[in-house]
Amino acid sequence: MPIIHVYLWSGVSKEAKVKIVKGITRVFEELGIPSQAVEIIIHEIPRENWSIGEELASEKFKNVKTP
Amino acid sequence: MPIIHVYLWSGVSKEAKVKIVKGITRVFEELGIPSQAVEIIIHEIPRENWSIGEELASEKFKNVKTP
Amino acid sequence: MPIIHVYLWSGVSKEAKVKIVKGITRVFEELGIPSQAVEIIIHEIPRENWSIGEELASEKFKNVKTP
Amino acid sequence: MPIIHVYLWSGVSKEAKVKIVKGITRVFEELGIPSQAVEIIIHEIPRENWSIGEELASEKFKNVKTP
Amino acid sequence: MPIIHVYLWSGVSKEAKVKIVKGITRVFEELGIPSQAVEIIIHEIPRENWSIGEELASEKFKNVKTP
Amino acid sequence: MPIIHVYLWSGVSKEAKVKIVKGITRVFEELGIPSQAVEIIIHEIPRENWSIGEELASEKFKNVKTP
Repeated sequence: MPIIHVYLWSGVSKEAKVKIVKGITRVFEELGIPSQAVEIIIHEIPRENWSIGEELASEKFKNVKTP
Repeated sequence: MPIIHVYLWSGVSKEAKVKIVKGITRVFEELGIPSQAVEIIIHEIPRENWSIGEELASEKFKNVKTP
Repeated sequence: MPIIHVYLWSGVSKEAKVKIVKGITRVFEELGIPSQAVEIIIHEIPRENWSIGEELASEKFKNVKTP
Repeated sequence: MPIIHVYLWSGVSKEAKVKIVKGITRVFEELGIPSQAVEIIIHEIPRENWSIGEELASEKFKNVKTP
Repeated sequence: MPIIHVYLWSGVSKEAKVKIVKGITRVFEELGIPSQAVEIIIHEIPRENWSIGEELASEKFKNVKTP
Repeated sequence: MPIIHVYLWSGVSKEAKVKIVKGITRVFEELGIPSQAVEIIIHEIPRENWSIGEELASEKFKNVKTP
């Protein structure tokens, strides 16, 4: 406790993954939760499988870089 | 708002993905929600990782085509 | 197959729920999937538990009606 | 993009919710993602519905406070 | 690891919850995973928020009891 | 009903998947639910996308085998 599922586009660098899990874990530590209790899963989703405003992200955001 | 997670078997064509996101987005538009607010994630799951009635779909439905 | 999880704000009318499940099921029927195979879960989330742009929806969208 | 689902025990104060959504949003902003794109859902789960090591949290952690 | 999300209809007794978490945890123990690593969340969903074959479970299964 | 999402590290053998779906389905059968109603999705997550205690499992558990 807590469990966090993060969904973002595929292609996240390992460096970004480390920043994500360290950053989110710290948010809960600051609320008094021991870091060992914080479990995070990062789900990388192909842009072709993600839509906003009925358009696939592979079209709508084809020039946006993944961190 | 809303966020929709769709889980189905791997191997969905891009054409089917477009139909899924357009169709689902329209359902919410008809309820008065702006389409830009509708975010959909399609999760493609290998049949070997999906069971119904304690049997893997890779066995039980090995002759069924994915749309 | 498929399974769909819909997340939206609490307070959805029964009439809107019926429209959501009928509309989404039809999207998959039109792809050749039998309607009996389509399973949908609607998760109603209090606005105080939903943020966009680091602001709780209970503040940011306090004047927006749920369908 | 990204979408984050946070699961924790019921009884989170509004102050803690604000800290959670601000803190997590900032993690993604620091990776170059605009804060308006970050959507977070907090799921509050009764301890009786959460187990660790085959024991319900309502028993195992009955003296632990929720933040 | 692993994390298991169980979705079923509201109204599960505490006795059934204990059986669910003990039973599922044992499945993973038998694969060599320590029970302390198994975390399970039970999501109770109102029947009015669950559809099968485009019909709300509150209608379709109104005479079926929850365990 | 019920729907179960299982999240574990990538690299699960087919034999282990069969044990997982048979074992979990049986838990619900013992509660009086017909096995045909039990639907399970196994999500295999790369260790690099899973953290416990702010450390990626690819580092923290690099010597632990997946079942």
